[in-house]
Amino acid sequence: MKYKEIFKRVRAASQKLLQIEDTRLHEVLDHLADAVIRETTFILEENRKDLERMDPAHPKYDRLLLTAERLEGIAADIRNVATLPSPVGHIVSETIRPNGMKLTKITVPFGVIGIIYEARPNVSLDVFSLCLKSGNACILKGGSDAEYSNLAIVSVIHQVLRKKGIDPAIVELLPVEREATQALLHAEGYVDLIIPRGSSNLIQYVRQNASIPVIETGAGICHTYFDKDGDIEKGAAIIRNAKTRRVSVCNALDCLIIHTDRIQDLPALCRELIQSKVIIYADAPAMKALEGNYPQKWLKPSTPASYGTEWMDYILSVKTVKDIEEAIGHISEYSSRHSECIITENEENAELFRKIVDAACVYTNVSTAFTDGAQFGLGAEIGISTQKLHARGPMALEELTSYKWLIEGDGQIRNK
Amino acid sequence: MKYKEIFKRVRAASQKLLQIEDTRLHEVLDHLADAVIRETTFILEENRKDLERMDPAHPKYDRLLLTAERLEGIAADIRNVATLPSPVGHIVSETIRPNGMKLTKITVPFGVIGIIYEARPNVSLDVFSLCLKSGNACILKGGSDAEYSNLAIVSVIHQVLRKKGIDPAIVELLPVEREATQALLHAEGYVDLIIPRGSSNLIQYVRQNASIPVIETGAGICHTYFDKDGDIEKGAAIIRNAKTRRVSVCNALDCLIIHTDRIQDLPALCRELIQSKVIIYADAPAMKALEGNYPQKWLKPSTPASYGTEWMDYILSVKTVKDIEEAIGHISEYSSRHSECIITENEENAELFRKIVDAACVYTNVSTAFTDGAQFGLGAEIGISTQKLHARGPMALEELTSYKWLIEGDGQIRNK
Repeated sequence: MKYKEIFKRVRAASQKLLQIEDTRLHEVLDHLADAVIRETTFILEENRKDLERMDPAHPKYDRLLLTAERLEGIAADIRNVATLPSPVGHIVSETIRPNGMKLTKITVPFGVIGIIYEARPNVSLDVFSLCLKSGNACILKGGSDAEYSNLAIVSVIHQVLRKKGIDPAIVELLPVEREATQALLHAEGYVDLIIPRGSSNLIQYVRQNASIPVIETGAGICHTYFDKDGDIEKGAAIIRNAKTRRVSVCNALDCLIIHTDRIQDLPALCRELIQSKVIIYADAPAMKALEGNYPQKWLKPSTPASYGTEWMDYILSVKTVKDIEEAIGHISEYSSRHSECIITENEENAELFRKIVDAACVYTNVSTAFTDGAQFGLGAEIGISTQKLHARGPMALEELTSYKWLIEGDGQIRNK
Repeated sequence: MKYKEIFKRVRAASQKLLQIEDTRLHEVLDHLADAVIRETTFILEENRKDLERMDPAHPKYDRLLLTAERLEGIAADIRNVATLPSPVGHIVSETIRPNGMKLTKITVPFGVIGIIYEARPNVSLDVFSLCLKSGNACILKGGSDAEYSNLAIVSVIHQVLRKKGIDPAIVELLPVEREATQALLHAEGYVDLIIPRGSSNLIQYVRQNASIPVIETGAGICHTYFDKDGDIEKGAAIIRNAKTRRVSVCNALDCLIIHTDRIQDLPALCRELIQSKVIIYADAPAMKALEGNYPQKWLKPSTPASYGTEWMDYILSVKTVKDIEEAIGHISEYSSRHSECIITENEENAELFRKIVDAACVYTNVSTAFTDGAQFGLGAEIGISTQKLHARGPMALEELTSYKWLIEGDGQIRNK
């Protein structure tokens, strides 16, 4: 089977990668950043071929588009990743057992990581640099829309690797056909981990079909709960920021939950949404409070479908609750466990919220817009995990490693 | 759908569990240990009903069998788990970002863990105590062979929980029918993690069919490489111990790899296997060295099928290699990445082996028999992970937790 040959090649190359020092990886990434700039004309020409096949009005067009400026940004990101500390070889724990054997738990690369993504060709470079820095080989499966762009990018990477004497098989781009995805999802023994990057449909598909471990990234159905003891000024600022900073990101606010005792403050909390023409889907008490205080044309009654939706748009649903328990219950039912926020000056309620709300990021009086690797100070980000296994929330280099146990001794055997 | 109701109930109970202090969980486990002893007659009577349906000659019979002595052992294990430090609420990292918001990464329970297992009814108690201690609710899917035993055990657990004022829905036993397994494997939004415990067929099935995260435990195809610079005495002891201590465990030795320059020492290395009547599948050079030095009746030529097999029996395959690279290549091809060992006095070779060999546990001059939670000093064990995501090697309480990020501030918003 043709894919198996590719998988074998990458697996073999991943082993050789284990012997390459971080200083050399740093150098390779710097050279790659140079090469991306040097080969700008070539990459943009190939990108043009992909763009020509797509309607410029299509939302994917902008994601597919590369420009000299974007390539400069990508090159800068590669240089930044190069300078980060290596996540490999950290000693997690070290003990001497009573029989004298030494036990060391040490971080190691996963080995081979498969990445499945859609129209964004920049992902090829982002992902490769994060994988290389963490000692991992990678198998890329990009979308067919970006075929020429990805081929060009991977050929630039291969060229740099060859020049630096590193087996180019540490990164391979799979052909665009669908069977390649299937093969990757079942590459047991060759691929250690799959990370899908893209729409929730893609992520859903990968999760349902992969027989090797997957890290689920993506969908954020995010709530902010304005508590009985919430501060109006903080609340209004956070709600505006979380909803309107960028509506197409996963940490954007989808549903405002408000304590019924504070329903008269709802107009003040929503006032700053007017300038962004945010459409509000309000339940009956919220509707009553907003009528006359919010433009009627952007005010609609909520339906059950208004909750549990990731809007990705200038839309906000509002839910009124009688107490914090009902707020937490609503979140538990509709959240995608990405980012959840409470606005309160009541420390007891804040503590309860932090303890019970099950999400990667639980905020107290801070906008959910901060759920991001760079904002968390992680230096880079390969995605935001919404599962609980291995990594949760923003994932950076450290999350691209596993560990192994080293046991050293002088002939110890086990008696019983 | 009837299973969904169960899943919802457990999910709701898991949230209440988050508010219960560790001292109370400790108490519950002590009471459970008492109840297991007190209810010995009842549990053994129910176990008898399961045993009556099974042929005593069947290998499963012993796994299914409970005795007063075994229940005492289980109760002691429960008391031990009760005394271990709670793995929940540990602060992994704490930082203040430049904008003043505080970021805390803190360990939390997964929430709901699904366990799928076969004929061993003791697993119900083992798993429940580990899950409870780590703040997790659990959904048990035991084998139909152990139906009465599991029902009895779970009723004892429920009785203790009710008496202690804890929602009994923190543990539910699914009905024995196959559709229950299917429902559990796809209980997205309700179950955070599935751990299969049992045969490699079961594990394979779960991995292939689950759409929620799985931790793969189990199969160990283990090698020991006797290097050019290996010490005969250490080698003979380790080989005997790893092969014959218990042949049915996953850390048992399956294949001895020997450097061709030391082939004349093979009889000495294998001498102590004779008393255990170990059958050796030898390649041509090994066969030549052993002939006349090992009982002919237990000596057979190896075939390709002799490698990459988890024997679970008094059988050992032997492979001769020309150098350490070939040994590592053989391991890379056939290992299940569980436990691998090098016997050498050459530190450079040991270093290379530790660096390149991809396994949960990599041993230098120590028997692979030590791959075990208790031997590693972890206090308990829920299984040995052979995957690299989240947990690798022996898994104990810490591995039954995830983490969340808590972000606290006073109205911070993100500017760009």
